[in-house]
Amino acid sequence: MKAFTLAAAAATLLSLAAPASAQFAKAEDAIKYRQSALFVMSQHFGRIGAMASGRTPFDAKVAADNAEVVASMAKLPWAAFGAGTDKGGNTKANPEIWTEQGKFKEANEKLMAETAKLAAAAKTGNLDAVKTAFTARPPVARPATTSTELGNN
Amino acid sequence: MKAFTLAAAAATLLSLAAPASAQFAKAEDAIKYRQSALFVMSQHFGRIGAMASGRTPFDAKVAADNAEVVASMAKLPWAAFGAGTDKGGNTKANPEIWTEQGKFKEANEKLMAETAKLAAAAKTGNLDAVKTAFTARPPVARPATTSTELGNN
Repeated sequence: MKAFTLAAAAATLLSLAAPASAQFAKAEDAIKYRQSALFVMSQHFGRIGAMASGRTPFDAKVAADNAEVVASMAKLPWAAFGAGTDKGGNTKANPEIWTEQGKFKEANEKLMAETAKLAAAAKTGNLDAVKTAFTARPPVARPATTSTELGNN
Repeated sequence: MKAFTLAAAAATLLSLAAPASAQFAKAEDAIKYRQSALFVMSQHFGRIGAMASGRTPFDAKVAADNAEVVASMAKLPWAAFGAGTDKGGNTKANPEIWTEQGKFKEANEKLMAETAKLAAAAKTGNLDAVKTAFTARPPVARPATTSTELGNN
């Protein structure tokens, strides 16, 4: 029984100690992955932004489709900011991501929550709801500031 | 009334004539987008493949989550293979994508259908179902052959 408990404790510790990057074959893959996910997200964000600001005509179906992709993509990049992925590839990610992990995690969760709200707003087909949700999203989700907040992720 | 009809017809023609890449600010963005989407997809594919082949232990929840991302990502890249995006960026995409568009479209549709089946199989929590669906997916979805089928997309 004691052996089992120790084994279980060791397994828990190991899983806690395993960097999130363990999902990736190498740090470069994690870096390319998060950059890819954020780039795809930014493209779809941009299309909603163009409608929210009136640069392109509002199309409820297009807005809803794009917002759904944004909300899905918003869940992906964070697992790729694991230990040991602060250097490598062409990353210029902000070092604070690793030194202030609590703050980073909070920002990620806020982004996921706000993009989910944006997707829900877009589903209503109401441009004003989309505008409100688009403006309410946290700074990290804004393409213009993504580079300064995340570095070149 | 006639003017309206002509305007409507012109709008339809314009929308048909507009290359898919019109969603992107420039060809390089379309190229980066499709490469990004395919890279994210390949990472999640790889994790299911590792479980299907027994290289990593089967975890039903992890398999289902990854298969869902694969199926979502499989819908994205195709809009970024529009006219004028066969050259630019660091693309080495296979020229046949543009010369044999019917075949390419068919392959995309098959990939989307098969990845949807994979996601459904993974949801059952049954490893054998995952293995069958993983093996059944079309060649274009296999990371090992993606480079030859799509070029460096």
